[in-house]
Amino acid sequence: MNSIGVDVGGTKIAAGVVDADGNVLDEVRYPSAGSPEVLIENIFRAVSEVRGSSEVGGVCLAVPGLILAQENKVVFSPNLPNIEGIPLKDELEARIEAPLTVENDASAAAWGEFRFGAGSGVDHLVFITLGTGVGGGVISHGVLLRGAHGAAGELGHTTIHATGPRCACGNRGCLEALASGSAIARRANEMAAERTDSALGKLAVKRKILGEDVSRLAREGDDAAISVLEEAGTWLGVGVASFVNVFNPEVVAVGGGASEAGELILSATRREVHLRARSPSRDLVRIQSATLGPESGVLGAAALARGGDGEYVLGDGGGDRA
Amino acid sequence: MNSIGVDVGGTKIAAGVVDADGNVLDEVRYPSAGSPEVLIENIFRAVSEVRGSSEVGGVCLAVPGLILAQENKVVFSPNLPNIEGIPLKDELEARIEAPLTVENDASAAAWGEFRFGAGSGVDHLVFITLGTGVGGGVISHGVLLRGAHGAAGELGHTTIHATGPRCACGNRGCLEALASGSAIARRANEMAAERTDSALGKLAVKRKILGEDVSRLAREGDDAAISVLEEAGTWLGVGVASFVNVFNPEVVAVGGGASEAGELILSATRREVHLRARSPSRDLVRIQSATLGPESGVLGAAALARGGDGEYVLGDGGGDRA
Repeated sequence: MNSIGVDVGGTKIAAGVVDADGNVLDEVRYPSAGSPEVLIENIFRAVSEVRGSSEVGGVCLAVPGLILAQENKVVFSPNLPNIEGIPLKDELEARIEAPLTVENDASAAAWGEFRFGAGSGVDHLVFITLGTGVGGGVISHGVLLRGAHGAAGELGHTTIHATGPRCACGNRGCLEALASGSAIARRANEMAAERTDSALGKLAVKRKILGEDVSRLAREGDDAAISVLEEAGTWLGVGVASFVNVFNPEVVAVGGGASEAGELILSATRREVHLRARSPSRDLVRIQSATLGPESGVLGAAALARGGDGEYVLGDGGGDRA
Repeated sequence: MNSIGVDVGGTKIAAGVVDADGNVLDEVRYPSAGSPEVLIENIFRAVSEVRGSSEVGGVCLAVPGLILAQENKVVFSPNLPNIEGIPLKDELEARIEAPLTVENDASAAAWGEFRFGAGSGVDHLVFITLGTGVGGGVISHGVLLRGAHGAAGELGHTTIHATGPRCACGNRGCLEALASGSAIARRANEMAAERTDSALGKLAVKRKILGEDVSRLAREGDDAAISVLEEAGTWLGVGVASFVNVFNPEVVAVGGGASEAGELILSATRREVHLRARSPSRDLVRIQSATLGPESGVLGAAALARGGDGEYVLGDGGGDRA
């Protein structure tokens, strides 16, 4: 049966009807700004509109922030504070008239890549999203790791350099503080001041450099911009090396806005993983870009909404034998 | 049905017959030194002797090193090199006349603590063993995380300080390089040179300081020894904070020789986790000593050997619903 995935982002709500093979049959968008009441109303409208008169097996909301799984409630959402504390399931399930679940957006995107993208065909996937922050999701033995309270998968908040720069979370030296889109932009502005003759340096005279400027100038061959991306890719590699040692995944997939720089980041990441991670895990893992782009959230949420119907069957490598 | 767990360590082989409730009914020990042929023969003797004439459901060998799960073979074992490359299952299963599996020793110990020790009653456990090195094992949603090739759970080789000291694995700044028993001993010898008036300093004049000296002198109140353990506990906390963010476990249990220092290490660990990890995971996790001591390997291996009979049933928090 079809299901509905809803990606509730910092600026927009995207709701899509998705079939069991991962085809988006229809999709609508609403703004996510406004009061909690407006947000709830817009989620309801998006779901109603995209569903039309067809029957769906379930609805899953992918939301940015920490979820308390047992309560289907967001407890912390720096990028969408108007969603904090709202009992989403209680507010919406009865009106929507379909089973409703709430999932962290990065976990939902990870599940999307696992079912339909970079991780299709494997049992073990680490998914990292490089945006303003760094999010992630892990599938191990075919199981999405949610943790005891639904708060697992915070890959961006692993400490990779104990005395490193301060992170938005308050900690020091998080992966997010060194390899996120924000970290890339910050480092690019520093680099521009050091290398005034570079394209990066010349742009900085006119205006503040954004993350997307760095990717564009690097693709145009600017050494300073390339250095910034290589540095971020190396830091990403420090984190990925640990994930490779801890999870022994078949695939590490990197998505999110900053990942559009692609190989400009990932070649440095692979080099660092090879230096730091252990054999045989480091030799057997594939480190690549995510393949679904911004649709991973809607697709993953829809697959999660399908519940028992779309249940993933553990492969022979399943860890639940014992 | 009863089963047999075999803990193959750097110096000895311990084989125990264990019942479904985790009671060790009988146990024997053999040396693990010698050629591969002698080692295989001693494992066979230990199993035969402890089994006697009773029937067992299976045998599991817990061995130090990286296992290729599909081949039931150890590919890398710095502490027991004579076991590397031996097809243990092929060599032993037919002679033992019972189903035989091979598991990493830290993963087996983690499973022991999960079934019968610090993690009994929970679904999410991170187990860390502080010995000469740092090993670990993770149970998430009741599933032992083995990874794609059986090499997962290398918690000691997460990079927590990118520019930190060189680790035995070749990497820099691993948790093992900063919080293992060896790291504690190394740091104690440095500290002794700095603080010659301390008990640590006075002992260092007579001989090289060992890990167990540090715990003893710290318990006797020597400030220098206490500082060394607090430092190690703080580094351990940097690593545990990341594991808390990534796994959102109910319990983090710390075992192994160096963990005998107990609260002298763990109070610093908890402090650092509170500083670095995110809410709500950091507030809901229990960080404690492992409870089974050196028996965790035999108990865990025996529980893993039981297979379907002793299968752990996923709780309501299970992540395989989707």
